[in-house]
Amino acid sequence: MALSKHKEASFFRDSFFNHLPRLKRFSTAEASVRTGAPGSPRERCLTMATVNPHVKAVEYAVRGPIVTRAGDLERALRQGQNQSFTEVIKANIGDAHAMGQQPITFLRQVVALCCFPELLESPSFPDDAKQRAQRILQDCGGQSLGSYSASQGVECIRRDIADYITHRDQGVPSDWNNIYLTTGASDGIMSILKLIVSGQGSSRTGVMIPIPQYPLYSAAISELEAVHINYYLDEDHCWALDIEELQRAYLTAKQQCQPRVLCIINPGNPTGQVQSKKCIEEVLHFAFEENLFVMADEVYQDNVYALDCRFHSFKKVLYEMGPEYFNNVELASFHSTSKGYTGECGFRGGYMEVLNMDPQVEAQLVKLLSVRLCPPVPGQAAMDVIVNPPKVHEPSYAQFTKEKNSVLDVLAHKAMLTERILNSVPGIKCNPVQGAMYAFPQIFIPPRAIQEAQSRSLAPDMLYCLKLLEETGICVVPGSGFGQREGTFHFRMTILPSPEKLEVLLGQLKEFHLRFLEEYSQQEPQIPRTAHDQHRETSEQPA
Amino acid sequence: MALSKHKEASFFRDSFFNHLPRLKRFSTAEASVRTGAPGSPRERCLTMATVNPHVKAVEYAVRGPIVTRAGDLERALRQGQNQSFTEVIKANIGDAHAMGQQPITFLRQVVALCCFPELLESPSFPDDAKQRAQRILQDCGGQSLGSYSASQGVECIRRDIADYITHRDQGVPSDWNNIYLTTGASDGIMSILKLIVSGQGSSRTGVMIPIPQYPLYSAAISELEAVHINYYLDEDHCWALDIEELQRAYLTAKQQCQPRVLCIINPGNPTGQVQSKKCIEEVLHFAFEENLFVMADEVYQDNVYALDCRFHSFKKVLYEMGPEYFNNVELASFHSTSKGYTGECGFRGGYMEVLNMDPQVEAQLVKLLSVRLCPPVPGQAAMDVIVNPPKVHEPSYAQFTKEKNSVLDVLAHKAMLTERILNSVPGIKCNPVQGAMYAFPQIFIPPRAIQEAQSRSLAPDMLYCLKLLEETGICVVPGSGFGQREGTFHFRMTILPSPEKLEVLLGQLKEFHLRFLEEYSQQEPQIPRTAHDQHRETSEQPA
Repeated sequence: MALSKHKEASFFRDSFFNHLPRLKRFSTAEASVRTGAPGSPRERCLTMATVNPHVKAVEYAVRGPIVTRAGDLERALRQGQNQSFTEVIKANIGDAHAMGQQPITFLRQVVALCCFPELLESPSFPDDAKQRAQRILQDCGGQSLGSYSASQGVECIRRDIADYITHRDQGVPSDWNNIYLTTGASDGIMSILKLIVSGQGSSRTGVMIPIPQYPLYSAAISELEAVHINYYLDEDHCWALDIEELQRAYLTAKQQCQPRVLCIINPGNPTGQVQSKKCIEEVLHFAFEENLFVMADEVYQDNVYALDCRFHSFKKVLYEMGPEYFNNVELASFHSTSKGYTGECGFRGGYMEVLNMDPQVEAQLVKLLSVRLCPPVPGQAAMDVIVNPPKVHEPSYAQFTKEKNSVLDVLAHKAMLTERILNSVPGIKCNPVQGAMYAFPQIFIPPRAIQEAQSRSLAPDMLYCLKLLEETGICVVPGSGFGQREGTFHFRMTILPSPEKLEVLLGQLKEFHLRFLEEYSQQEPQIPRTAHDQHRETSEQPA
Repeated sequence: MALSKHKEASFFRDSFFNHLPRLKRFSTAEASVRTGAPGSPRERCLTMATVNPHVKAVEYAVRGPIVTRAGDLERALRQGQNQSFTEVIKANIGDAHAMGQQPITFLRQVVALCCFPELLESPSFPDDAKQRAQRILQDCGGQSLGSYSASQGVECIRRDIADYITHRDQGVPSDWNNIYLTTGASDGIMSILKLIVSGQGSSRTGVMIPIPQYPLYSAAISELEAVHINYYLDEDHCWALDIEELQRAYLTAKQQCQPRVLCIINPGNPTGQVQSKKCIEEVLHFAFEENLFVMADEVYQDNVYALDCRFHSFKKVLYEMGPEYFNNVELASFHSTSKGYTGECGFRGGYMEVLNMDPQVEAQLVKLLSVRLCPPVPGQAAMDVIVNPPKVHEPSYAQFTKEKNSVLDVLAHKAMLTERILNSVPGIKCNPVQGAMYAFPQIFIPPRAIQEAQSRSLAPDMLYCLKLLEETGICVVPGSGFGQREGTFHFRMTILPSPEKLEVLLGQLKEFHLRFLEEYSQQEPQIPRTAHDQHRETSEQPA
């Protein structure tokens, strides 16, 4: 229709467009006039009516509306608007560096050397960092971090990971051919789920996930149109995984779908528990019996703080259960550069080890990964440092060890601090933060607050978290974003702010909580001793 | 069943496992004995029968079987096995650094500075690189590359990209809110397609792609279970996009699906053509009329070699067509760090600019992207350098400009060289390599070779490429992996090897081709002047 109107278009550019700072200003009115339908803008191809319904179904609380609101408040503060606080503290996401944690020097030295190899001549870089960088570069095409790696990752890094796993698991063999570098752990988890989900109707793949869960899982399941199978962790027993609950969830789901995947997060996110070896054995036995593919999210394997807890890898426990298990149970374990003591989230590094996968399916996995070409190579280099840190006799050992221990010691201190202060608040009960980076306390929300939330179409803990944010600048994520037993309410907060800031934050949280109880409890003056005790009496039922 | 057998397992570990170098050796036999089903190993959960059928349907030739075979040959060479060649040359993938192209110094300096900020004190880094790095870091959480960025990317980088686009398009406004950093362009393309695909049966989303195409598109369409709508580029006219062919494809497809997306690759991959402004106008007019979402893959926008060609961005052309187009056509344009003159594939950097998207759908896109948290931040930093290179008065300008021009000049030389030598071979005809990084010549394959391929269940050009690889070590990708008119055969080769190596490669290719013709043409001694001419007479029909 209007190929002949180019001159007119150029008129618009010269006289009209250039005076408008932002594109969107002149959008709708102009369009409707010129398409000859005054008042009604032209209908788009992509609308909420036509968008992929599985994308619409995705929820991801860690970066949900509360975080958007936190961003708005931050901008308002920067622009000098008065608030009742001077800073927004983002305790919503496990983003250590954003909270002030310093990078591990050795890791950054190796990646910088890989990135700009002229530095290999610089006397200010230690020899062990240079050797690591040279070794990585030798396995990169053209000895450059800028080449695509193989879809599974750089070979020497895959070998280093296999060695690391063997050492971590006290000799249980690891084959580097089973190692796949990934773009953070999320990418690996998504790829494996994508591979597995199939079937229609009652044969559609069901994926068992813990409740509470890290919402990547529910998001991926929604996106892939798989069936959610929720098994509830036992809050009364430090968020233990109870095998009977696993069986209940499995048997209930089996009537509607084909359960094929069992996801476990250990140490737990958002729940912070560290699973016992006995529990892992039971879970693996269950997976063996029911022929489930096990996905073990072990990204917090270095984050164990409780003195009576140890990290047991699913793989090692499987090995110790004997060859009938070790040679049969299909297991993918995930790790990441984003957590641990490095906290290198921005590099999007990670790996997965995949056991007992059918070789033909393995070829399908490699093909699927190859479409995205390769995981980011700087992130692969970062991963290499984590699995191949300086050795005792090497020049960087002392500083590396000091930095690593310092990060982990401070985290352990903050885990204890958080639990202690939260449990000192009437109406809050928090399980021990045995590992990972989060507290997931249960909070008592008075019935009047629940009513108000319902009248505003908010989850009650969303109302709580929104008010906490507006009044204190503290950003945490409502428990409803992770899943929780009906009638219970929680929030997830990270333990990542510096000890000083964390103590202030927890103090403010305490004050807020007491204000919140007072505001909504005027009809019910007695504050329950802990929300937990109250819920135990009134509302806990298998869900 | 066997939780009591831990002692036995530990016996296995001590006496048996440790003597075996690789995990897989003791897998099946042991398992079948111990699961009590001698001879028949336990059935897996995930098999070719249960794997996601849409993953099975994915094809990705750029890293397909021929590349696997090239890897095998490379390993064999390293282990000293005799071959008729001394080196495998991977001309299968646009991986510039792997082919010896040197990184742009300034880019690597900035990323290294971001990575290891202690270097900001080093006198050996130029001030402009330091300023760029400091500016990026100031917008990163905790001023660290290790923090997650916003899901859309680091704010100042998004602003720089918008400024770059405005400048590239001679003043056409770009809003940084429409810019999304991505994990390479592939990730952006995949995300947009994922957002759009919906419907069932005849309302299922159809995606129009050029044939030949870059196989990311067909792979994504298969994975998302959308409908492929092929429109054929016109080989007789330098792979031009013919609007009548677009209409034919659209109308044919409309009976079976709901065409909603039109993908264009300009400059073309694998075909190397640069679209004229007139052609782009026609395409956009068509998209406007049929209300199609336009995906413009413009990752080769800096790779234009032919003197009579210029890159015209879809956005700028849309703007010049007037507000009724500019304010209505839904357009996503993709760019990448992997191509251009930087060739930084390993960093997985890229961006997309999205125009006229419904704001509610935009929120869905942000949510979808947020599940993966953020694109790799080092790749974002690399992208920033590309859109914000040293300015005339800055200290790095001279070296940067010299390096950039050198890469582009050499590429232009190799584009010409490749076309010239290929067209000197009887039975090969190659369109001008106007842009991008590939030649996609048509090759004549004698009927006897076609018969042999069919008897071996290979595509005829796969047979050709396999033989080329086995005899010469040259790895190229068969045209069947990109799509081609039935009865025609092609391969894609990159122009990335160094000029010396490329000349040798083309010489070997020529010799191989003549041998191949001779081997298969004994019954038909006359070699056609060009395959192209022959096919025009015999087999070209609209497909």
